[in-house]
Order: sequence, then structure tokens, then C-alpha cells
Amino acid sequence: MIVVLKQGASEQQRGDLIEWIKSLGLDVHLSIGKMQTVLGLIGDTATIDTELIEGLAIVESVMRVTEQFKKANRKFHSDDSIFEIGGAKIGDGNFMMIAGPCSVESEEQICAIAESVKASGAQMLRGGAYKPRTSPYDFQGMRDEGIGLLLKAKKLTGLPIVTEIMDLSHLEHFSEVDVIQVGARNMQNMELLKQLGRTKQPILLKRGLSSTLKELLLSAEYIMAGGNEQVILCERGIRTFETATRNTCDIGAVPVLKELSHLPVIVDPSHACGIARYVKPLTLAAVAAGADGIIVEVHNNPEKAMCDGPQSLKPEQFAELVKSVERVREAISS
Amino acid sequence: MIVVLKQGASEQQRGDLIEWIKSLGLDVHLSIGKMQTVLGLIGDTATIDTELIEGLAIVESVMRVTEQFKKANRKFHSDDSIFEIGGAKIGDGNFMMIAGPCSVESEEQICAIAESVKASGAQMLRGGAYKPRTSPYDFQGMRDEGIGLLLKAKKLTGLPIVTEIMDLSHLEHFSEVDVIQVGARNMQNMELLKQLGRTKQPILLKRGLSSTLKELLLSAEYIMAGGNEQVILCERGIRTFETATRNTCDIGAVPVLKELSHLPVIVDPSHACGIARYVKPLTLAAVAAGADGIIVEVHNNPEKAMCDGPQSLKPEQFAELVKSVERVREAISS
Amino acid sequence: MIVVLKQGASEQQRGDLIEWIKSLGLDVHLSIGKMQTVLGLIGDTATIDTELIEGLAIVESVMRVTEQFKKANRKFHSDDSIFEIGGAKIGDGNFMMIAGPCSVESEEQICAIAESVKASGAQMLRGGAYKPRTSPYDFQGMRDEGIGLLLKAKKLTGLPIVTEIMDLSHLEHFSEVDVIQVGARNMQNMELLKQLGRTKQPILLKRGLSSTLKELLLSAEYIMAGGNEQVILCERGIRTFETATRNTCDIGAVPVLKELSHLPVIVDPSHACGIARYVKPLTLAAVAAGADGIIVEVHNNPEKAMCDGPQSLKPEQFAELVKSVERVREAISS
Amino acid sequence: MIVVLKQGASEQQRGDLIEWIKSLGLDVHLSIGKMQTVLGLIGDTATIDTELIEGLAIVESVMRVTEQFKKANRKFHSDDSIFEIGGAKIGDGNFMMIAGPCSVESEEQICAIAESVKASGAQMLRGGAYKPRTSPYDFQGMRDEGIGLLLKAKKLTGLPIVTEIMDLSHLEHFSEVDVIQVGARNMQNMELLKQLGRTKQPILLKRGLSSTLKELLLSAEYIMAGGNEQVILCERGIRTFETATRNTCDIGAVPVLKELSHLPVIVDPSHACGIARYVKPLTLAAVAAGADGIIVEVHNNPEKAMCDGPQSLKPEQFAELVKSVERVREAISS
Repeated sequence: MIVVLKQGASEQQRGDLIEWIKSLGLDVHLSIGKMQTVLGLIGDTATIDTELIEGLAIVESVMRVTEQFKKANRKFHSDDSIFEIGGAKIGDGNFMMIAGPCSVESEEQICAIAESVKASGAQMLRGGAYKPRTSPYDFQGMRDEGIGLLLKAKKLTGLPIVTEIMDLSHLEHFSEVDVIQVGARNMQNMELLKQLGRTKQPILLKRGLSSTLKELLLSAEYIMAGGNEQVILCERGIRTFETATRNTCDIGAVPVLKELSHLPVIVDPSHACGIARYVKPLTLAAVAAGADGIIVEVHNNPEKAMCDGPQSLKPEQFAELVKSVERVREAISS
Repeated sequence: MIVVLKQGASEQQRGDLIEWIKSLGLDVHLSIGKMQTVLGLIGDTATIDTELIEGLAIVESVMRVTEQFKKANRKFHSDDSIFEIGGAKIGDGNFMMIAGPCSVESEEQICAIAESVKASGAQMLRGGAYKPRTSPYDFQGMRDEGIGLLLKAKKLTGLPIVTEIMDLSHLEHFSEVDVIQVGARNMQNMELLKQLGRTKQPILLKRGLSSTLKELLLSAEYIMAGGNEQVILCERGIRTFETATRNTCDIGAVPVLKELSHLPVIVDPSHACGIARYVKPLTLAAVAAGADGIIVEVHNNPEKAMCDGPQSLKPEQFAELVKSVERVREAISS
Repeated sequence: MIVVLKQGASEQQRGDLIEWIKSLGLDVHLSIGKMQTVLGLIGDTATIDTELIEGLAIVESVMRVTEQFKKANRKFHSDDSIFEIGGAKIGDGNFMMIAGPCSVESEEQICAIAESVKASGAQMLRGGAYKPRTSPYDFQGMRDEGIGLLLKAKKLTGLPIVTEIMDLSHLEHFSEVDVIQVGARNMQNMELLKQLGRTKQPILLKRGLSSTLKELLLSAEYIMAGGNEQVILCERGIRTFETATRNTCDIGAVPVLKELSHLPVIVDPSHACGIARYVKPLTLAAVAAGADGIIVEVHNNPEKAMCDGPQSLKPEQFAELVKSVERVREAISS
Repeated sequence: MIVVLKQGASEQQRGDLIEWIKSLGLDVHLSIGKMQTVLGLIGDTATIDTELIEGLAIVESVMRVTEQFKKANRKFHSDDSIFEIGGAKIGDGNFMMIAGPCSVESEEQICAIAESVKASGAQMLRGGAYKPRTSPYDFQGMRDEGIGLLLKAKKLTGLPIVTEIMDLSHLEHFSEVDVIQVGARNMQNMELLKQLGRTKQPILLKRGLSSTLKELLLSAEYIMAGGNEQVILCERGIRTFETATRNTCDIGAVPVLKELSHLPVIVDPSHACGIARYVKPLTLAAVAAGADGIIVEVHNNPEKAMCDGPQSLKPEQFAELVKSVERVREAISS
């Protein structure tokens, strides 16, 4: 249920109303937007008399919110959310290019890639330290040592870093990581989401292989319910019957999510298609559809990459991609 | 199997080689492109000695083609195909906007919509005369009378028309239709495809709800094998578990199809998402991904439309969409 | 909307009520069952005053039917339908084993297989004369000559025959075919379904690769609306992301369809899994789930079969399968 | 790669061969079966000279194993695995019925249900203590208190218990749980699987909503690679486009898994269909297909259940189901 307040409501009046609502056993989420101030009520609102609240002097309107997600819901927060990460912003027209290798393999590799993507225009560096491998016999990643190398690359280039957490037991190693990524296979790892709701860093939440958009928003809600409202949603391709691409990029996810939620929405074209030469068209499609950012895999030697080589761009391809992205962004803003 | 000829090969030498290949019981598809001339061999090539052919003076190289589709295969025809329809072109950089209502409802309706989309920049008019309805109790379309009205709208505006054929028994009514559309549910109606292979008009072939891209190309092959090489491929959304949109637009289909085939590739964002307010972002995504055209539903009174009202654009929305499309096209061409 | 009549209503009273309903512009489907007599109203029943009808002396109850399918709906016809085919019955506890090769290849082949499946206990012979091939270069079937051979096998063994129709233009060749099969790819070929609604033979309707059960029932409705109420529904596997089997057998379709409809429900385990050694477990699963029949591919020489060899059973495997089926049927009947 | 030893090989000879293989840097998995003794080699076997090994006196044959899963592979362990749990066995013909409520709600509820399912013939009690809820606002389960109540029910009835673990941080509470369940959403929680590989209890591994059977086996491999070889595989329905049932029960998973792996395979019909009245047909289908067990939800008051009420059986329905299951099992064994 949301309660939209009249323009002239004072802080005192607003505070009194919030107190009263809390006394009914509900939680109140306050959103002061450019155009309106909204109180989002969370809890068992079924028995609340909407007419009673609508009759209050400072109340403009009352509306029941049927969706199970509230804090992530645009009805609770009509303005686009903007997050500031390492000097760059994402959301509400601010676009972010995130690039880096699938895995951190060595100091030389991660620093070289960091410098080159930075020069090309990336605003954040990605790199896998803990790898979710389908088979137990595959390379598991450099783990906490890998995080250390990412931090070195950050020190060298100034780029903030985003890297995936596989399990809560590793959280202590993530204290200096700028954005913590939750992988597709962990999108419904509720315990992990609850704990990440208690961290301070923004969370990059990847859509599950076969999760509906509603389930993605409910997972975002898990994190936000814990207190961390900085969640970035990421479409990375869904599992379908088509095998020409590794997954099927659900480009419709971009407008749907941006309509239902105020959270920034980005796309991962690398995992979506799994083939380097399709990454550019998918990227430009995502930008044209209104995405707030792109996260893409870049490797200086894709044939020798320890994972996902076939979908990685070479540095020069990434440089060219950034320019194309800028042209498309300009075209849709005019 | 394809045989690439050396630059200097004469028409006589080429003709002799083609004769010899045919004497082996194979069919030969000749493709004279900007950069190279290719002979595409169709039939049982398993026993052909590639070294023997490679040894001929006029032969540059020989390559086995593993894909079952040949005529539709870019290996058989390296240049993009260009089709000319009613004064407009599609393919190889030529982009086509196709618009019109889901169903032809009356002379007044189809003519009004035709005039308005023409003024906005559309190059072809769509309209359903024969409707594929899931339920036998739904409106089945105006049928051949509807085709008559489309022809009136064509006469009035000069716009060529595309409309769907449901069954071979109706083919006689399609003689003046510029482009014959095969709907998603008929993509594997082999008898229909074989007969359309004998017509002269270009065929707009829609991907089946759960057809793979390979199956789409094999259906195109059915038509082309019959002699009609003018096939336009259309991505219109595939069936997945996600229900937020009517179908899931497989934007990756655009780069994949354009790589595997020389045929033009367009996207139908209306059926892909089923919701009017998502049509624009999907359209721009398709354009940015490299599509050769868009086919979109436009109705002057969506709330009263006899079918698919919820996904139809109003004329003014279409006018605005065309301008956005032009800006994105410019951005990706530079 | 359905109108359930009281037990004692006379034929005259029933006739008068039907006349009156028809005068309102509706179609009436009469179902005299073991337990109750039901009038199924088809058409625009939105404005009908249910209380008015409920008030009539001979009316027990009135209920609105929300599903779009009516004649196929169990609410319109509460007893299981029973069809008699060539001396055998299917439905309402009567189970039918249907077996034969994927394609009719020669008189010797089809007669040999017919004799052996008959000896094993099959009640109907299947065989493809017109083949739906994904590629235009694959074997297209013996066509009308193939139907001639099926009729010879029928004459020899007494087994009724079921074979697939690909297109309306071939209908004239099907006059002596006992059951006409509509393949998965033609499940939404509405023109074909409408015409088959005018034939006298039972129709075996296969579920589309990605058709919902509701769409399957609507396709059955298309046929029944045309006048032919003998429709047998067939689950043959649906398309999913899993590739270990050719399709995914949706065993849940059996109880769902039998709950929603009175039509007989059979399963095709051969196409569902595509691998001969999984056919037996799938068959027994279908029987245990309550299917009214099984249609399975049998070939006397699977390695040399012209199509679908990998999923065909050898005659001795089929003989053994029939015995296992009988044991499971006994187990679920007790 | 697997090395099959000749029948007469002595323990000494076998031990020497194993030592030599380990000296090459490989891991050796020994499987002494009824019919043959197999050494399964794990690691980089690409450079191993198979002829060299085949030439050894005690070696029968050598075969490369292409599948990534080894310990779970039937090639490594040709006999069905048998696990003993609380006096009952599962695998190799031993069938297990597992029943209980979706959630543990109170001592009275869990004990009443335990007694009734035990009386009906169940061999293990299930009950959720930690619940994976899609929304953060739904009932999260009684957690460790719930496990305490399950242990009380165990003490009362003698039934061993299986319950789901949501996160590694809870593992300490599972020390007395007989079988630890990994839910569908955690099937690729690699860190969790690795740790469970170090526990002593059997693990019930549920297939992910959209995991392939190969991925399921790789997840089993993760656990087994850690040292715990007691893994029970569970098909619980996969996510598809069909909405008539909650998920689509992939009955083909049973024969496929039993062919590829020696691990026991069970089916969860409750989550597969989500509707109580379809549970019986799905259960009997699973039994007829060859499943080693069934895990089903039973609640003494489904309308008041705190979760999944609609799919729960009442105790009397469960009693009746067990009898039907026994009849079908008898039918397929004869």
C-alpha cells in the first residue's frame, strides 16, 4: 500500500502520520521524490481502511500495491535511483560501462586489462576471483588472492571493482570491494541475499538462468529488506530451447524492469550470447532499449583465457565498442 | 559443398564446370557476388572428391557445407540479398518500416491507417485478412474481402502490401499481394512452403513460437528450393517461461541469422512483447542490433481494435517511432 | 454456460428448452450422460440471465463455463467419450495399443510389421505416408502410394490404420483411412482443423512442440466445432532446454487433460524421448498415469529405417512391451 | 578413463597398479562390483597411453570417459548404489517412500503427521525447517527449532528424517539429521556442495528448476569429489512454458539418470505439479518408470498449511497412495 502525501505537508505532519502507521504494526518506507513524497507501507495491510487514510488532510491518495516487492517497486519510489560508485554514477540517465576478464589470472593480466579498459572509457573493472564452475574439476579461481590483485589494479588505475561472491563464508574478503556481485546461480540463495542486505556496498544482482523478472525483483527485495537499498539489476540471458547462442538475451527485460522498478538495469551481453562476435550487436541493442549500463568480458588474450575465452572481447574491440555505445546513447537521448 | 572460382574464370569455363557437376546428379546454385563467384552444390556430395575439383584450373577453393540449408546459406551467397518491393528496397543497408493494423476491419479503417503510416514514413502496409485464431469462436478475419480492401488502400497511397496466408486453398486471392506472409504457426507447414516456392512474390517468413534459428533457415530453404529465392526472415519473439511479456524477443537472432544467411532479417516487436508501451524500446534494440526492417502494428483506435489492441501503436506514436529509428540507424552506420 | 437438467425432464420439455435457447442466437450442445443430462450453450452467453434459467422447472443448475473450449470440455460432457475403431474401443477404461513404422517404405516392410504387431496385441497400425521433414532434402514419404500399402496391410491383418495428413489438398486420398492424424506442427493449422471437422473419421490430434494444454484443447474445439466430435488427444513431448532426450515427455498432461476434457488421451513415447531404450519406461509411466492408449514406433530393421530408426522398437521389444503394459494396467485398475 | 580389471587380479596386483597410476598425478576411484572391478581415473588423463595400460596382465580393457562426471558415472561403478538409512534401504531394487509436511509448524503437527505416514508405510519423514521463500515477507520456517521438533518426531516413530539446508552457516544444526536435502535453488551452490562432500550423511540433491540432467550429475560429482559418495538424485519438475501445472515433471529423467549413473533416483511429484489431485498419477508414473523412491508432501490440514497446502495430500490419501504404489511396483518387477 502506498500513501501519496500532498505537496504542502510539513515534516511534523509527515512524522506524526508515520508514527501512527507504525503503531499499527507496519513498516514505513519513506521516499521523497522530485515530484511527490510517498509512504510505502510494508506488512499486513489487508485490514487497513484506505478511506480512513485518504480522509486525512495531508494525504493526496492511497493505493494498494499488489506486487510482493515493495522497496524495489517504482510505486514506492517514483524517481530513478542513482548510485555513486568510485566517482562514477549509474541510474537516471547516468550510464556505466563495466569491463574486465572472466577470471583474474595474474597481476600482470589484470593490471594490463584494467589499464586498457580504463583508457577506452570503462568506469568499473570486473574480474572473477571466486568462480562458479559447473564441474568440480575446472579452475576454481584465485579466490581471496584474486581479490587482492583486483585491488592492486584499482590502485593502479583508479577504477572501482566489482567481483562475485560465491558464499557468505568469504564475505570478510570483500570489505574493500566496491560492488559485490551475486551470480545467476545464487539469485535465490536467500541466506546470502539477507546478509548482503546488511552490507554497505551496492550489490550487482544477476538474473537467474530461468528466473522470472518478478523473481528477480523479489530477490532484490530480499536485499533491500535487509537495509541495503543499492541494488543494480542485471539481465544476462535466460535459458531456452535455442542453442545457437549460449543463452537467450531477454532484451524485453530492460523496459519491463525499468517500468516496475526504480533500480538501475544493466545487461551482460557476454554471458547472454557466449560468442564474442555477437557481443557488439547485443550491447548496442541493450543501450538502445534503455539500459543504464553494460558489463562485458574483455581479455588481452582470449585464446589463452582460463574461462569464457570464446565470449571475451580483445581490448581493441572493446575500445571500438565504447565509441559505438556513445553514438547510440546520443541517438536515443535526442 | 561450395566451389569458389578464381577471379579470371570465363563464362564458358564456368558453364562447362557447371555442366560437368550436373552430370554427377547434383544441382548447382550459381552466386555471382561483388567479391567472388560461388557454385553451391546441392545433393549427395558425400562421394565427391574435393581434391579433384580443387585441382581444376579455374577453381580457387572447395569447402564442404555441413549445414542442411544451402540456398539460404551465406556460404552459397556471400553478399547480402536485396529485394525490391513497390519501389522500396530491403537488405544490404536498405531498411524497411512496415506498419498497419492487426486486422483489416473496414475500408475506412484500413485507408485511414494506410495514409497515416505512409505520411510517417512507412514503406509497406501490413494488415491481416485471414486471421489465425487460437479459438474457433474468435473473429476469423474479413478474408478475401479484406485483401480487396488492402488493395484499395494500396491504390490510394501507393504503399505495397503484405498479408498472411493461412492455407494453400486461398492462394488464388493473393495474386496482387506484394509480399505473402507465412505466420509463426505455419513455419513448418511444408506443403504450404513448397507451393510458395513456386510463386513470384517475396515471402515474409515468421519464426515459429519455439522454432530454432536452424529450423527457420530450413523452412526458408523449403521455399527457396522451390525456386522462389526472395525470403525475408522475421524474429517475432519465442515462447519461454517468462510471462511479463507475451513472448520473449530473441534479439540475438538478428546477428546470428545475418551471419548464417544472406537473407534480410526483420523484427516484429508488437507480437514479441504484446504490450504497446514496450514496442519502442524493442524496436530501437532491433535496429541497433542490425535488423533490416521492422514490422509493427498500428491502429487508429487500439481500444476498439478487433484483435491485438493492447500491442498496437497509435498513429502519432508510430510517427515518433520512425524518427527515433532513423536516429539510431544513423548512429550505427557512422 | 451449462444447464444441467433434472432427472425427470421429458424429451418434449428438453426440446422446448433447446428451441428457446436457440431463439436467443445460441448454439446448443446436448450431452446425455450416465448420471446427468447437460445442455452446453455456445455463443455470447454474457447477457443471459442465469437466474431466469435456473428458475425453470426442469432445470437443476446453471453454471458459467469460463474456458474457451466447450465441446471438448468435461463440463459439457461429464462421461468419458468412447470411440469405436475397427472393432476396438478407446476411452472410459478401454485401452488401445497403436504401433507401426515411422514411414511406410515398401509393401513387404509394412505388411511384415503389421503382422508382427498384430500378433503382439496391437489394435491399430500406424505408418507415415506423408512425412513432415524439417529439411526439404530429406525423404518426403511414399505419399498416396504409401496409403495404398497401409490399406493392403489392413486387408491382410484386419488392423485399422492411422496416418498423418500434411495438407488439405491430400484429403481425397484419406477416405479409407480409419483415423486421420494431425501432426504436432499442424496443431494450429486452423484451416486444416476446420475441414477435418467435416470428416467422419476420428482425428488423432498431436500436441504442438510448444503448445499449452489449453491450446491443444482449443485445437480440438476447432475440429469439434466443425461437427466431428471424435478427437483423440496425444501428448508427444514438448520442447524444453533439456537435450538428453529429443523432447520432454509432459506426463502431467495425462491427468490434466483427463480432468479438463472427456476426450481420450494417449501418449507417444517414441517421439517424446527419441531413444529406443527409454521407450519402455516412458510407456509404463504413461499407462500408470492413466493414459487411454499408447502410439509407438516399431520397425523390423531400425538401423536401416528411412526415418526415426534410433527411437523405433524391434518387433520382439514391442511384444515384450505389450505384456508389461498389461501388467501395469491391471495394477492400476485394482 | 576407466580401467576394467580381469577377474583373477589379486589385491596385491590391484594395489600396485593403483600406486603406479597415482604416481602419474591422477586420483583413483576403486569400484568393486558384482560383475567387475573398475578403476576410475580422475585428472588429466589426456596424455595417458591407453595401449600401455591395456597391455598389463591384469587389465581387461581401458576406455576413455568423455563425461565430466566420474564418481557419479555408471562407467566408474556399474552396480546400482545402495544406501542404508535408518534401517531402510534405497537403490538396486529397494524402494523408499518419504513423506511429511512442507513445513514443520508445531510439535503437535509434525508428530501427528509422522505417526500417520509411518502407519501408512513411509520409511522416512520429510519436513522443512529452513524454508526458501521467494518473497522476504513470507514465513521463513521454524529453523533450528524446527529441526528439534523433527528429532522429537523421529524419537517417537523411529522414522529417519530428511530436511533442507539453506546455507553452510546452519550446518552445525544438522548433525543428527539422517539425510540432508539440497533444494533446487541451491543445486549449483558450489561452496555448499563442496562442504556437504565432507559430511557423513547421505545428501538428497534436487534438480534445479532449469538444470540439465548433466548439470545435476555434475553437482552430484561436486559432493562426491569431496568424499561423500551417498548422493540421492531427485527429479522435482522443471520450468517450461506450460502453466497448467506448477512445473513440468520430466519423467524421462528417471531412465536417463539410471542409465548414466549408479546413484538412486527419486521423484518429488508434489513440487512437480503443485496440485494435490495430480500427485497420485504422477507418483504411479514415476514408479512405473523405474524410480527408486518418492518424496511427497502430506499435511493433516492442507487448507491451514503454512506453505504449499494446495499440493499436499491428506493422511488418508497418502495411505491409499502407498497401496497403489506397491501394486505398480509388483507389476513392473514381474
